[in-house]
Amino acid sequence: MAGEREALELIERVRSRPPRFRDAQITMAHGAGGKATLNLIEGLLAPAFGLTELADAAAVGDVALTTDTFVVTPIRFPGGSIGELAVNGTVNDLAVGGARPAAITVALVLEEGLAADELRDEVDAIARAAEAAGVRVVAGDTKVVERGRCDAMYVCTTGLGHVDPRAALAPSALRPGDRLLISGPVGEHGVAIMLARGQFELAAPVESDTRSLWPAVDALLEAAGPSLRCLRDATRGGVASVLNELSRASAVGMLVREAAVPVRPQVAGACEILGIDPLYVANEGVLVAAVAAEGAEAGLRALQGVPGCEAAAEIGEVRAAPEGMVIVETGFGGRRVMDMLVGDPLPRIC
Amino acid sequence: MAGEREALELIERVRSRPPRFRDAQITMAHGAGGKATLNLIEGLLAPAFGLTELADAAAVGDVALTTDTFVVTPIRFPGGSIGELAVNGTVNDLAVGGARPAAITVALVLEEGLAADELRDEVDAIARAAEAAGVRVVAGDTKVVERGRCDAMYVCTTGLGHVDPRAALAPSALRPGDRLLISGPVGEHGVAIMLARGQFELAAPVESDTRSLWPAVDALLEAAGPSLRCLRDATRGGVASVLNELSRASAVGMLVREAAVPVRPQVAGACEILGIDPLYVANEGVLVAAVAAEGAEAGLRALQGVPGCEAAAEIGEVRAAPEGMVIVETGFGGRRVMDMLVGDPLPRIC
Repeated sequence: MAGEREALELIERVRSRPPRFRDAQITMAHGAGGKATLNLIEGLLAPAFGLTELADAAAVGDVALTTDTFVVTPIRFPGGSIGELAVNGTVNDLAVGGARPAAITVALVLEEGLAADELRDEVDAIARAAEAAGVRVVAGDTKVVERGRCDAMYVCTTGLGHVDPRAALAPSALRPGDRLLISGPVGEHGVAIMLARGQFELAAPVESDTRSLWPAVDALLEAAGPSLRCLRDATRGGVASVLNELSRASAVGMLVREAAVPVRPQVAGACEILGIDPLYVANEGVLVAAVAAEGAEAGLRALQGVPGCEAAAEIGEVRAAPEGMVIVETGFGGRRVMDMLVGDPLPRIC
Repeated sequence: MAGEREALELIERVRSRPPRFRDAQITMAHGAGGKATLNLIEGLLAPAFGLTELADAAAVGDVALTTDTFVVTPIRFPGGSIGELAVNGTVNDLAVGGARPAAITVALVLEEGLAADELRDEVDAIARAAEAAGVRVVAGDTKVVERGRCDAMYVCTTGLGHVDPRAALAPSALRPGDRLLISGPVGEHGVAIMLARGQFELAAPVESDTRSLWPAVDALLEAAGPSLRCLRDATRGGVASVLNELSRASAVGMLVREAAVPVRPQVAGACEILGIDPLYVANEGVLVAAVAAEGAEAGLRALQGVPGCEAAAEIGEVRAAPEGMVIVETGFGGRRVMDMLVGDPLPRIC
């Protein structure tokens, strides 16, 4: 099929151009974790700050640092709340960076008029999640802005971790033949938030998967340490965005077997009704691991032994071509390009 | 004057009660750096997170961490902008914590519709300020919220520094006889912001003093290292709030000679017209140092040799009583209690 090959080569050429930030205004899409976010980061922020590799956590000597602001709405949802998310999200960025989470800072922006009890609940949620994740809250900050200049509260957490000597991870380290593992069923956080917003006439028992991924990372490092190429938590933009970023960073292709991706029935059902692909939906407790073939089975077994990761699965593999692209093999043997997210179907998911 | 002594003893008893957070709602005062902020921090956040000492930066092993969100409005003002402020503010919290600033993370919350050029300007400001302060931007995050859920942009920076071996600083280390130094003229940042808002029919050539304070701290540590008790940058709530916090933390009294406090004529003039005391106005490049008497002169001379700190001065001293209180000796020989800031006369100053 020469036509298909030529089309792929064209996409590949377009794809290999350095992203540029040309927009005149910031739109919700710039915060969605997809193409517009990538253009903003790679086209403006990374060059200005001299950042070369867009990892989840950056090493400073033997410690790793990562930062994230949480602007999720509503602030409470089935399975969690903004405070818990703010701890786990940052802990997970450290974990997938191969660093054992040790300490976090918490900076709050509060909207004038916020009920003190709501604040108390989130402060408690932060304290509990930090304890569960084994991190110490070491510093904080509080700002208050006028009504209508925030949305209840935003929480910025920064995490410090100790780089694990077993980890040698980089988004550019993937090689053809590597296997792609996923730590659990996808789409739960995003679907839980959507349902919590009540925009859809749909009730399904779906809870956010917010949790610390350090136990999963620890198990993977122990079972497959030197075989591990890169880990990513599949938050904004979902598994699809993570795989696209890694395929670009490593200049490799990927083949994903859709039928192998674990999705709970209630999430699959909600996604079908809402017309969205669970591979693009945000998770807050799911990681993607690229592992050299020789370590894949041990890695997968180790993952499956971690509470919450029983459904871990191998979902595909790294190919030499088409560079920077992710191809999905559907249940019926068809194939399609799984592109980066465009626009922002689910704003303010984290 | 038995009446005066009794009154002071009563205030002292009230003052020594542990702060409690009893408010039903968040108000702008909770973000102002004064009494309400202290009640929120000491009454809710610190106990929940197990924070014992409310220092500007927390030590984690041999590194120090600090975090701050900047919500200043307008985002550009004479002498600086939010990006520059976000770097210097966090660098300064490390510096006054006795840590040499090394790295920062930058988390942006952007309002949908923000002009890309405004963002570019602030990204450049962040990069330039980081370079000037000798810190590397190591990680970042970008979130976008809908119009009316932010105010152009908020910037959360977290700083990592290396604890300087010359520094042994603590807010509880002040002793009667210590001298109080200030690194430069007060009130410039706050007055610059107020004038930039155009709420007052007043134009005066006042620029924000935003700058890195590490050179000042470095000079102080070199000249008076073991004599230094504590350093604080006098941001929200101004010099008055810093002195009140230190007097409470060390259970000492303070005497400040008003006439010794450096204030530029245009700031003094603006404050007089606006009816505010420059000692309560925020600074972004001024530190207060408590120094044992034997190191005070060397410390002051060292400070005066640092560019931007030529007007450094000794403004008062630590006394045994009244515990937790700051007394100001006015130019006319009168005395008054310089209490903590109540309410928020200047919201969103940083």
